[in-house]
Amino acid sequence: MIEDKTPQRTSIAQLGEFGLIDHLTKNFGINQPSTLKGIGDDAAVLDFKDKKVVISTDLLIEGVHFDLAYMPLKHLGYKAVVVNISDICAMNAKATQITVSVAVSNRFPLEALDELFAGITHAANEYKVDVIGGDTTSSQKGLIISITAIGEADEEEIVYRNGAKQTDLLVVTGDLGAAYMGLQVLEREKQVFQVNPNSQPDLDAYTYLIERQLKPEARKDVRTLLHALQIKPTSMIDISDGLSSEIMHLCKQSKVGCNLYEDKLPIDPQFINVCEEFNIDSTTVAINGGEDYELLFTIAMEDFEKIKGNPNFTIIGHMTQESEGIHLVTRANTRIALKARGWDAIREE
Amino acid sequence: MIEDKTPQRTSIAQLGEFGLIDHLTKNFGINQPSTLKGIGDDAAVLDFKDKKVVISTDLLIEGVHFDLAYMPLKHLGYKAVVVNISDICAMNAKATQITVSVAVSNRFPLEALDELFAGITHAANEYKVDVIGGDTTSSQKGLIISITAIGEADEEEIVYRNGAKQTDLLVVTGDLGAAYMGLQVLEREKQVFQVNPNSQPDLDAYTYLIERQLKPEARKDVRTLLHALQIKPTSMIDISDGLSSEIMHLCKQSKVGCNLYEDKLPIDPQFINVCEEFNIDSTTVAINGGEDYELLFTIAMEDFEKIKGNPNFTIIGHMTQESEGIHLVTRANTRIALKARGWDAIREE
Repeated sequence: MIEDKTPQRTSIAQLGEFGLIDHLTKNFGINQPSTLKGIGDDAAVLDFKDKKVVISTDLLIEGVHFDLAYMPLKHLGYKAVVVNISDICAMNAKATQITVSVAVSNRFPLEALDELFAGITHAANEYKVDVIGGDTTSSQKGLIISITAIGEADEEEIVYRNGAKQTDLLVVTGDLGAAYMGLQVLEREKQVFQVNPNSQPDLDAYTYLIERQLKPEARKDVRTLLHALQIKPTSMIDISDGLSSEIMHLCKQSKVGCNLYEDKLPIDPQFINVCEEFNIDSTTVAINGGEDYELLFTIAMEDFEKIKGNPNFTIIGHMTQESEGIHLVTRANTRIALKARGWDAIREE
Repeated sequence: MIEDKTPQRTSIAQLGEFGLIDHLTKNFGINQPSTLKGIGDDAAVLDFKDKKVVISTDLLIEGVHFDLAYMPLKHLGYKAVVVNISDICAMNAKATQITVSVAVSNRFPLEALDELFAGITHAANEYKVDVIGGDTTSSQKGLIISITAIGEADEEEIVYRNGAKQTDLLVVTGDLGAAYMGLQVLEREKQVFQVNPNSQPDLDAYTYLIERQLKPEARKDVRTLLHALQIKPTSMIDISDGLSSEIMHLCKQSKVGCNLYEDKLPIDPQFINVCEEFNIDSTTVAINGGEDYELLFTIAMEDFEKIKGNPNFTIIGHMTQESEGIHLVTRANTRIALKARGWDAIREE
């Protein structure tokens, strides 16, 4: 017998709008005690008792924020949830619910939407957030995802961007720049594939970078880690646009300056190798590359002993008087004024 | 002197992403006591104390949900907020905050975005909701608006779709079908304009219908009206997809049937005239036309005296045993099974 290898393609129109919503949302359970009513009414109903509620939202557009040529739909669904939860983590809060709205053009069969929602479900399970609502509609072109993340925290736990004081230490989780270089590797492979569709990519040397790009994680563990160390950051932000841009946000809102030390930047050995291969300066990427979804925060000087040597955190600088400005102190001990350029700027170097 | 009549067109790119967000959000104040922190951090922070939180979200796509040929951007901004607040009203809750995400292609100059945000601001002021967050990005094609609305209510106030009992009365606010006929008038004018761009439309006979389409209102007053009458609906939903479809939702979730009476349907005289002009059956439109954003709810039979003769409400039917099904009882006293077809179905008649 000859096996039919054609992937199944079910038209979304066959299900109808309500059928499609039922189909896509049937796996979403309710696990958070704060979710009284999830999907299925005009609105979800939540009960946070004496907790404060934090809310953040992001819009992801095909061709602007992602490229389906190298972003599998399941990964995209996962990442779309993660980037929103990262914003909740950046408030030192616990993510509890999300809403997910999706618009797709009719070139997407039901099986593609199922992949996307499998990724969303996986992330919801991994981060223990309830999917409590959303909207599913058609688009004229491409795929659009809009997610709103909701979280909770006690008022005294919440960390804003505006609380950094001069002499505070600047701390970052994880390492920097890998997601950006992962994107460069994937874009190069896309070019190769376009020239020779039969080429078999060997991506072993890039696994960490590609994973950082395709399957980032939100640092929900940091809240617990800091709580155990009895540290409350004075300000915090997540790194989505790039370290440089995020430092500018903290400094602007806290009315302080900053010295960032090049030799302190946490970077992965694979990242260094690939920067050399691409002939890109690794510090430039570590500072301006986006999508790391690590947390950047400031702590009071007296908390130094609590964090010193902790493998989860790297002290990369300290805050200063606002009038001193925002500078990178290089390995050669020269001071360069930081600019918020975002990661599109790297290529212009 | 010769006046330059060219409308000003400022490229969005000139402002940069952060400049654009600052520009668009500078008029959004905070008025709700539950808003602790609005725009400007990774997430907004809200405090609902002992209230329950209700959340709903909608995605609006150019070419699918609206046509900029006859929808002015200011009206679109207003309507996008209203349709979300309507969902909060349908829970018998009070809308308190919204987030607004917008994606635009670069064919939109800054002045167009300003118009859109003027409408959003106007609605936020009118409905006394704080704009607490959002996202602004570029799209490959057209305009995309994603709004999440947040509201509050005491637990015992909240009305779900699933509480209708057999013998309950079915009640609707306002009148039905006008928004759909407004859309028909606007689409006809668009056709005329395409044939003859110099034609001057005379829309005096259609003002009410066009206003219902272009500037709908959410029934935030109903919560207060019902409270004053000491009525708590047993189930409630807003009419976005059409009366027929919404009745099916209430019946399905409440496990009841329904008799809807054709002669009770509240319709406006202008609506009747224009249905005749378009040679469309007015009952079909009243039942299947969408976007009225009126509220549909059920009340216990013993509340009949409280609502009888109230000009804000019309009793249009009653609930029955589930096994009796869902029927329209016509003026000729025949029973026709209702189908949830949504408003695209009207043209197939």
